[in-house]
Amino acid sequence: MWGRRAGARICRPVWESRRAMGTAGARRGLLGDKVALVTASTEGIGFAVARRLAQDGAHVVLSSRKQSNVDQAVAELQAQNLSVSGTVCHVGIAEDRDRLVATALERHGGIDILVSNAAVNPFFGSTLDASEDVWNKILQINVTATALLVGLVAPHMEKRGGGSIVLVSSIAGFSPFPALGPYSVSKTALLGLTKALAPELGARNIRINCLAPGIVQTKFSSALWKDESVKEKMMENLRVQRLGVPSDCAGIVSFLCSPDASYISGETVVVGGGAPSRL
Amino acid sequence: MWGRRAGARICRPVWESRRAMGTAGARRGLLGDKVALVTASTEGIGFAVARRLAQDGAHVVLSSRKQSNVDQAVAELQAQNLSVSGTVCHVGIAEDRDRLVATALERHGGIDILVSNAAVNPFFGSTLDASEDVWNKILQINVTATALLVGLVAPHMEKRGGGSIVLVSSIAGFSPFPALGPYSVSKTALLGLTKALAPELGARNIRINCLAPGIVQTKFSSALWKDESVKEKMMENLRVQRLGVPSDCAGIVSFLCSPDASYISGETVVVGGGAPSRL
Amino acid sequence: MWGRRAGARICRPVWESRRAMGTAGARRGLLGDKVALVTASTEGIGFAVARRLAQDGAHVVLSSRKQSNVDQAVAELQAQNLSVSGTVCHVGIAEDRDRLVATALERHGGIDILVSNAAVNPFFGSTLDASEDVWNKILQINVTATALLVGLVAPHMEKRGGGSIVLVSSIAGFSPFPALGPYSVSKTALLGLTKALAPELGARNIRINCLAPGIVQTKFSSALWKDESVKEKMMENLRVQRLGVPSDCAGIVSFLCSPDASYISGETVVVGGGAPSRL
Amino acid sequence: MWGRRAGARICRPVWESRRAMGTAGARRGLLGDKVALVTASTEGIGFAVARRLAQDGAHVVLSSRKQSNVDQAVAELQAQNLSVSGTVCHVGIAEDRDRLVATALERHGGIDILVSNAAVNPFFGSTLDASEDVWNKILQINVTATALLVGLVAPHMEKRGGGSIVLVSSIAGFSPFPALGPYSVSKTALLGLTKALAPELGARNIRINCLAPGIVQTKFSSALWKDESVKEKMMENLRVQRLGVPSDCAGIVSFLCSPDASYISGETVVVGGGAPSRL
Repeated sequence: MWGRRAGARICRPVWESRRAMGTAGARRGLLGDKVALVTASTEGIGFAVARRLAQDGAHVVLSSRKQSNVDQAVAELQAQNLSVSGTVCHVGIAEDRDRLVATALERHGGIDILVSNAAVNPFFGSTLDASEDVWNKILQINVTATALLVGLVAPHMEKRGGGSIVLVSSIAGFSPFPALGPYSVSKTALLGLTKALAPELGARNIRINCLAPGIVQTKFSSALWKDESVKEKMMENLRVQRLGVPSDCAGIVSFLCSPDASYISGETVVVGGGAPSRL
Repeated sequence: MWGRRAGARICRPVWESRRAMGTAGARRGLLGDKVALVTASTEGIGFAVARRLAQDGAHVVLSSRKQSNVDQAVAELQAQNLSVSGTVCHVGIAEDRDRLVATALERHGGIDILVSNAAVNPFFGSTLDASEDVWNKILQINVTATALLVGLVAPHMEKRGGGSIVLVSSIAGFSPFPALGPYSVSKTALLGLTKALAPELGARNIRINCLAPGIVQTKFSSALWKDESVKEKMMENLRVQRLGVPSDCAGIVSFLCSPDASYISGETVVVGGGAPSRL
Repeated sequence: MWGRRAGARICRPVWESRRAMGTAGARRGLLGDKVALVTASTEGIGFAVARRLAQDGAHVVLSSRKQSNVDQAVAELQAQNLSVSGTVCHVGIAEDRDRLVATALERHGGIDILVSNAAVNPFFGSTLDASEDVWNKILQINVTATALLVGLVAPHMEKRGGGSIVLVSSIAGFSPFPALGPYSVSKTALLGLTKALAPELGARNIRINCLAPGIVQTKFSSALWKDESVKEKMMENLRVQRLGVPSDCAGIVSFLCSPDASYISGETVVVGGGAPSRL
Repeated sequence: MWGRRAGARICRPVWESRRAMGTAGARRGLLGDKVALVTASTEGIGFAVARRLAQDGAHVVLSSRKQSNVDQAVAELQAQNLSVSGTVCHVGIAEDRDRLVATALERHGGIDILVSNAAVNPFFGSTLDASEDVWNKILQINVTATALLVGLVAPHMEKRGGGSIVLVSSIAGFSPFPALGPYSVSKTALLGLTKALAPELGARNIRINCLAPGIVQTKFSSALWKDESVKEKMMENLRVQRLGVPSDCAGIVSFLCSPDASYISGETVVVGGGAPSRL
């Protein structure tokens, strides 16, 4: 049973309502036997990405901050016959990052793919009011920890002859979300981090790209869409016909990690349903 | 025999030298029974895209300006058991655009995918010296004809419940190639055309995206890479480890036309090997 | 009456449109004795720019398509003791472009500054419905004629030891205005034209930059702001507190043409009141 | 004696070799009696900006980390009859930021202008090797401290009816400098910070813009230009005819703080001599 869970299909994409069940099944082997680390992957975008990488043939190591969430996500995906295991990882803690990498090496002997999705947003309000602690925490988790994790996995990818990395930024990195200033700024920084790392990683046969999702309906973003009138307004401003769902972000990540993307590096792909982003 | 031709593998991608033979075979069905028009598709990027769309299950209608080129490309792809036919089309001529569309409708009953790749570059020199004729010709073929072709196919896509369009721009649209000013400007215009069309097409369940290849080794771009010292210089400036090959552009186009990209519209993806492009 | 009105200085709101008369008085000499050509300059943004360049010390040659408009604009500015003359010029016509340049040379012996503001927009509707004629006309006037005019004046600037050029694009070049697709695309093309010309002109000691105004209240843009409810909506979408006025665009053009901008070339400056544009 | 120091004229701008002495003198009054804070302003870009704001009529409060540097810079500018005072300020330290603001309030009764130029770069090497301490320090000083300083001055500007802020980023924010990855990423973040703050500040009648200098010859950037062969290479890659000098950045900052820029907010202006940056 390789197909998507029925539940995930309730919210049908507008533009492709005829989306075939189980396209993922047909693609099995695309990432055959690659080992993939995905952070913040027990729900939302990270979970959808982890599932897709596994459906496409990768051995996936899931992670997030709570053991119970890890256990549940692993169980759900293993029940779909996917090669998935997990470990607790708070990306802001050095020991946790080390353990995440060690786990992948022990279980699978190497690392080929990293999807860095972990981000915090402890603040909602005027950017002018954000405290030093808020700024430090957001930049440390969303930017510094991302850079450090890349630095940690790169040598292991190099040993395997190369690899592929995807950082998860946000459309807010191009055009900040109101009331989410520090978060948005951290996502802008990731656009630059992708650019800064591309040549250095390229010399090691590792590609790095970036995903900038629009407003995707997850627990994380619920403040932006739970109220129906806020949601309507948002959709009008964004000029989109529906908000995104986590699985909208899964295919492009798998693509960017596949051989088909071998000449794409240093780039950010916006998945925003046509919302204004940039040229 | 679904695999790539051996000949195409002589120039191996640097970052993914372990690219599996026949990944395309495994993906058959991804674009199952979609009807795709690809302009300027008898060689170079267009040909690689046409082949890939067909490998992924589409019925492809090839085209370019010379009957002999069309015949040869169709024969080559049919010999690979791909569903490909062709017709002569000079995209700058209204009758030719009409015939291209009519051909697809007659043969396959509808149109689902358009890849607009046709472009001319009759000028190499200082932009300051480009004549009115040069400017008019380049803008008419590269921009106006593209817009008109989109306008022509959109109603047919709408009848099928939606569709997907990819315009082929260039990294020169972001950072102009020296001596190719008017061509570069026409490619910048396509970035805007993609943005302008996205909301209008979105309302018709049609997505439109744009591809911006870096320097890809084709007959078209030979002035930029045939001389070994010019090529070395170019690669250094671009900070890439190899120049692109046409097949580098094929996977992303197929992806953008697939259900996996259903929430991606109005975007430009750069395929430039890590060359500086934009944030 | 060159001095600032005292009243305007008591509380000078930053966003306010009640710009003081004659700040330029203090700056007289900044463009001392430079000769400036400004196209489409008998009203709106072009007129405001022409007036400002003259206030800052330049000899300005105004132009637009109707003799009566030229006469009126020249009279108005001469009544302010500014060094302004004019000539009819339809920038799409080669003879008119030649005459514009010849007029400046005859009257002032050379050309130092060009502000290319002329643009047409004969179309309002779905981009999908724009005809070949519409596209050709818009691209020919807004893009080709601009490039040709630059090519025409550059040698004269070179003879003077250098010069400065400003192309007037639009924020629509970054994020297209609804119902103004072809116009928006032509403005995107100007962003690329600026980039393409910068190195070539740089070698001749000529700088070129680009202005991207947001929605400025002119006769040209009246469809976007005349209806009060459309205007309210527009302002909300743009997140601005007022729409622009022509004089908002004048200071930056004068600045870009001044020695203070001697290290700024190839750049586009957005004057949009804080509306989302690009990073 | 309002003119620039003779020493600053050794490196003459290429495009405007006829730059008049003392243009600033003619502009006195443009920022008449405005109170301006400029951080990191005892040398390089910050010093050039401080001098220019003072030449244009502002009361300037200089600052940097060393008392002796502050004393020297203040003495030099006071000797030019400019209204300049100074205080020691390490922007990463809360007490120092408070004292900077308090100093301006005590001496001049309010704050109208903030130019945030302070930045550190304690790291030169592969981004992959940057430690957690390096990342934290760079982001804390270059991003967090900037945001906090803006938050600190905004209420004081609001009391005066509005104000203007300029953040100093870098062209490296768009296209990272090799070996300066973390620094470049912090500068990318400032592009987003400018965007995030613009609407919030706009509601308080405060504008915020951003400056992105190219490679400017300062002590700070000496690693990039001191070696003649590195410099030649750099200039070729940047396609510029000269490297920048600090005064190249002064005019645009003064302009952005002036009433002439009243409809410009949320924007970044690149001062890069025509180097490739972005559309």
